[in-house]
Amino acid sequence: MTKRASVHSKNLQTIFYPNSVAIVGTNKVKGTVPGDIFTNILDAELNGVIYPVSPGEKFIKGVKTYKYVVDIPDPVDLAVIVFPSSVCNKALEQCGQKGIKAVIIISAGFKEVGEKGLKKEMELLEIAEKYDMSFIGPNCLGVINTDPFSRLNASFARKFPAEGNIAFLSQSGALCTAVLDYALAKNIGFSKFVSFGNKADISEIDLLYYLMDDEQTKIILLYLEEISDGQGLIKAAQDVIQKSQKPVLIMKSGRTSAGASAAASHTGSLAGSDQICDVAFRQAGIIRCENIEEMFNIAIAYAYQPIPKSDKVAIITNAGGPGVLTTDAAIKAGLQLAKFSEETTLALKKSLPAAANIKNPVDVIGDARADRYIAAINAAMTDGDVGSVIVILTPQSMTDIDTIAFEIAQASKHYDKPVYASFMGEADVASGIRILQQHHIPHYILPESVCNPLATIYNFCQSLKTENKLVTTDLSFNKDAVNSILSSAQNDNKSYLPEYLAVKVIQEYGLPVLENRFVKTEDEAARMAGEIGFPVVMKVMSEDIVHKFDVGGIVLDIQSEEDAKTAFRSIHEKVNKAMPEAVIDGIYIARQVPKGTEVILGVKKDPSFGPVIMFGLGGIFVEIFKDVSFRVAPVSKQEAIRMINETKASKLLAGARGIPEMDVDSLAEAIEKLSHLAVDFPQISELDINPMIVLEKGKGCFVADTKIIL
Amino acid sequence: MTKRASVHSKNLQTIFYPNSVAIVGTNKVKGTVPGDIFTNILDAELNGVIYPVSPGEKFIKGVKTYKYVVDIPDPVDLAVIVFPSSVCNKALEQCGQKGIKAVIIISAGFKEVGEKGLKKEMELLEIAEKYDMSFIGPNCLGVINTDPFSRLNASFARKFPAEGNIAFLSQSGALCTAVLDYALAKNIGFSKFVSFGNKADISEIDLLYYLMDDEQTKIILLYLEEISDGQGLIKAAQDVIQKSQKPVLIMKSGRTSAGASAAASHTGSLAGSDQICDVAFRQAGIIRCENIEEMFNIAIAYAYQPIPKSDKVAIITNAGGPGVLTTDAAIKAGLQLAKFSEETTLALKKSLPAAANIKNPVDVIGDARADRYIAAINAAMTDGDVGSVIVILTPQSMTDIDTIAFEIAQASKHYDKPVYASFMGEADVASGIRILQQHHIPHYILPESVCNPLATIYNFCQSLKTENKLVTTDLSFNKDAVNSILSSAQNDNKSYLPEYLAVKVIQEYGLPVLENRFVKTEDEAARMAGEIGFPVVMKVMSEDIVHKFDVGGIVLDIQSEEDAKTAFRSIHEKVNKAMPEAVIDGIYIARQVPKGTEVILGVKKDPSFGPVIMFGLGGIFVEIFKDVSFRVAPVSKQEAIRMINETKASKLLAGARGIPEMDVDSLAEAIEKLSHLAVDFPQISELDINPMIVLEKGKGCFVADTKIIL
Repeated sequence: MTKRASVHSKNLQTIFYPNSVAIVGTNKVKGTVPGDIFTNILDAELNGVIYPVSPGEKFIKGVKTYKYVVDIPDPVDLAVIVFPSSVCNKALEQCGQKGIKAVIIISAGFKEVGEKGLKKEMELLEIAEKYDMSFIGPNCLGVINTDPFSRLNASFARKFPAEGNIAFLSQSGALCTAVLDYALAKNIGFSKFVSFGNKADISEIDLLYYLMDDEQTKIILLYLEEISDGQGLIKAAQDVIQKSQKPVLIMKSGRTSAGASAAASHTGSLAGSDQICDVAFRQAGIIRCENIEEMFNIAIAYAYQPIPKSDKVAIITNAGGPGVLTTDAAIKAGLQLAKFSEETTLALKKSLPAAANIKNPVDVIGDARADRYIAAINAAMTDGDVGSVIVILTPQSMTDIDTIAFEIAQASKHYDKPVYASFMGEADVASGIRILQQHHIPHYILPESVCNPLATIYNFCQSLKTENKLVTTDLSFNKDAVNSILSSAQNDNKSYLPEYLAVKVIQEYGLPVLENRFVKTEDEAARMAGEIGFPVVMKVMSEDIVHKFDVGGIVLDIQSEEDAKTAFRSIHEKVNKAMPEAVIDGIYIARQVPKGTEVILGVKKDPSFGPVIMFGLGGIFVEIFKDVSFRVAPVSKQEAIRMINETKASKLLAGARGIPEMDVDSLAEAIEKLSHLAVDFPQISELDINPMIVLEKGKGCFVADTKIIL
Repeated sequence: MTKRASVHSKNLQTIFYPNSVAIVGTNKVKGTVPGDIFTNILDAELNGVIYPVSPGEKFIKGVKTYKYVVDIPDPVDLAVIVFPSSVCNKALEQCGQKGIKAVIIISAGFKEVGEKGLKKEMELLEIAEKYDMSFIGPNCLGVINTDPFSRLNASFARKFPAEGNIAFLSQSGALCTAVLDYALAKNIGFSKFVSFGNKADISEIDLLYYLMDDEQTKIILLYLEEISDGQGLIKAAQDVIQKSQKPVLIMKSGRTSAGASAAASHTGSLAGSDQICDVAFRQAGIIRCENIEEMFNIAIAYAYQPIPKSDKVAIITNAGGPGVLTTDAAIKAGLQLAKFSEETTLALKKSLPAAANIKNPVDVIGDARADRYIAAINAAMTDGDVGSVIVILTPQSMTDIDTIAFEIAQASKHYDKPVYASFMGEADVASGIRILQQHHIPHYILPESVCNPLATIYNFCQSLKTENKLVTTDLSFNKDAVNSILSSAQNDNKSYLPEYLAVKVIQEYGLPVLENRFVKTEDEAARMAGEIGFPVVMKVMSEDIVHKFDVGGIVLDIQSEEDAKTAFRSIHEKVNKAMPEAVIDGIYIARQVPKGTEVILGVKKDPSFGPVIMFGLGGIFVEIFKDVSFRVAPVSKQEAIRMINETKASKLLAGARGIPEMDVDSLAEAIEKLSHLAVDFPQISELDINPMIVLEKGKGCFVADTKIIL
């Protein structure tokens, strides 16, 4: 943990649970941010003392004011600054002098307005660092903590939300007001609600770590517009998910904005930065959401109901059509329909009319009243094969909507199995939906909409069981050797490594290279070729030559020492003729590549997430079909196998119709090792292994050509 | 048009616009179908006379009843039968006797309850045919016509919907009640609303044709659980779309149910019937929807606003975050962001504060009141580059929500450009949303949700312009020749054609086959091979031999007449040795296939949609990647090109990195011709051309091997 992070970790507790709060820069004007914020914090009945600081007023709403924060006679835990940006810095300085450690800066007019604002924002940071203060903002809506031990509404939101287990963090302030309004109407409660604005000091990463240990929070929702520290975000999310088992849902906007810089190599031209964001989130176990609705559809299912113990659902409906549509959606989401036991079938037969469908999805038929619903729900809840229950209702003239809603809530209390509901329609079903929401039964406008959230939750919980047991292979690499090669190249101001050194680098990290030598004389060439064993290939090594083949600098299929000598001479003659000015450093001899399947591995740098590994099958698959997969480094062997299988062409490695199974295992190990090289040496800006030859299962794989750019 | 279809066409007008209606089997019991249906039709104030028919009552709600329908002294246009199924048939018979032509049978207890019910349902059909009657149902919710000239509510729905331009047809009755409730809450109006249940007589196809000419209907929504006549549905939808330019939206459930029968050939094993349904809908121009929400999201955008003249949108928001999310969604949906003119930019600059974003998406900033929204909307509406306007609002404390809603409605009236809105949140924005809905401004809970509907509408209208101009190539085929080949094979009880006949069949339909002969003697073989020109191939023709190659029945690369004689003898010797009992019919000689790209064409039968054409690239692309595309036959050349381009591997035909461009044009022509063969000869149950060799552009393509199963 960095020094600032540990400062934040302490101060965040004070931000959420202050014993005393100063509202710095407030006034009496209703409908303005400085005015409303004081009203809000007062109305929420804070569990602590409130000190309005207002140079122009003696009191506000009967509460005594102070001219400056330093005038407050008692100690102050938290300052909420609402002054115009012009005087914010001075106010923050005074907070530091007063010994305040926790600050929320609501005021706008900083980074978001350009250069001048950015400068002021950097000054805020300097002041905070000087006094070991931490601040949220600037340019934000504020912070809400519904915990009765705090009841803090340090925000200019219209509403104080209900208490709940969902934490919501947002980079956009305006979105927060929409979310609060949406949540209030649906009786969705929050534990902590934070608009963190420009995140000049406290970032989403600090907030994630805080929420990891927050007892009120069961699930974390985060809206992000910009990822400044991708590696940090990944690490924080992984820690939260694995240590506290809390799902982290992120909605990240800017999907279609073109990536920052287009790199020249394959890797560069194929990876859009949003694609990398997708990949990184998946690696971290983050659930990426497309919109607010998807986010809350998952959140209410997770926050309000027990975790489904299996992926098998029971569907109960009074309308066949929606039952079929929900079945379709369940299967598409990767869920299964539960198969009822004989007891269940018997129980359903007894309590439902003859025309009802007692198979899953259960159709209690249009004229069903609450008694049929109760019977069907009880039967499904007690069936061992049922992991969760989805109840669908359409408003027929005889449907006793409110009673059914109430009975669902009762059943939910009685059994430790999740139940979700969809009362279709809008006007007639409104009161029933309200009853469901009051009792924390997750309700969905369309029954189909419950399936994806349910599958997401189920998969999340399953992955917690398996992903923790990641086999971290005990790898040791010759870091020093690589370091000296790279340092000496950098000292010589070289932008890329000659092939024999590039091969050496990856060899030191355990990648399977073909046996090779670097020679300078004809005799040496013959002897070394003999040592390697025939056939061998020879390549000219020269910093002046880019396209070795075109100048006759490559000879393949050398079968004897005599051949080796001839090849040595031929390379020198041809190169000298084609490029008389080129300096030949020597000749690189390597065992000839055996036949196998060609794949490509690559490393590139993502501006947000750092080193990224690429994999794809060679030839048309990368060139024409762009059939590649990515991972943020490092990559475990298991993850490497998933990465390989993600490409469509991986079927060609798996052994299909006439094609033998290839050595995917050794390929995955190579990917793992390469990913560690990428992490250990950030000075490698691009690395291409093209091609790597994968042999049949058990026979390994070999790097045939490699390129490292610094 | 069939005889029944023309009967229905006349009677449907009477069903929707009756001058007199008999409710056959009604009673006084509230909360029951027979009771409610009379109340509903009475309450809706029908523009006509209502006659309750009830054997047990003298009057209902003060209206005189009749014991039997035949007792009514006046002529009756429409009968609505609500008797139990046991007496329905008798009631229908009496309706026939009374001269009633139009009937709605609400009663359940027919096909849906099994064999016995199906029998009763078939009887209903016989009675209807006898009297030239048409009926909707049985087992349905009924029919609603909101047109003031009718105001018919012959249904047991709780609500009479608002008047509007949307027609809704549903196979599920229960779904209808949910839809009506949903629509009422959102002020969505309907022109016609039909629950057609078991569609024993009048089907969705008849209803589509009726709605094609219905002036009240602008767009048609259809929920289907089962497609009984796929070809008819496609034809009807195409007619409606092309003749009346009304969009047809279909939601079809049962996506995941496995296809009926798994055929043995490639085509069969790859085509799931839901995939064919997708393909068929797309060919017909039908917009397939996943759920009710998607359907109405499109319907309100189309029904209530003008058609966008371009795909360029302007986004106006008071919150940056949702603006970015909507931009993402717009681009993903295939729309573009409009580029504002200098005038627009100037106008925005003048009326918005300095901190506002005057580029698209326009951010009027959180504290915006109606004046800023008006200025921005007017600027966008008058900009020539803007095709449509999306207005986003989040409820900040100063936002005058209702006024802004009202101003959007005013702007919409003033300009001939579509405007859509999203007021985010729920409780605070409710009154604003209501104002928007009252003024028919399409409203979406999430601003992102407007993008797909908008793109769908735009693409639909664009396709009307282009798809109508389908070049129907003037093809003429030798139908008689094919007919005689197929008939004679069928007469001989053959289940497949020998290769030389299969080749002849496709040749008669203009498919490019390699020059070939069928010979019986060695000398003939030599002469004919010479006529064809070398190299040629020879294959044994024998009904007893399936795997020709394995028994030495194929010789390739024959270079001279001498070689041809040797090959002829060799085939006979080897086959006689391997299968002494096999009868050799003769030898098939063909020009040897030139080198090119291998593709596969196929024909199979879909139980709903009839002959289906398959296309894919040979080798791994079909075998391992299942990279194939389908179309319902017939297929125009243009459609065939789209079909080819739909496969990922088609990139290999288009000319990419080192691979020459292949003759896609002649391939598309071959697909077109093959599709006509499939339509003209339904007795062909399967046809495989595997492979077809496509040569470089301008050099054509050739069938290398073909198989026809009867």
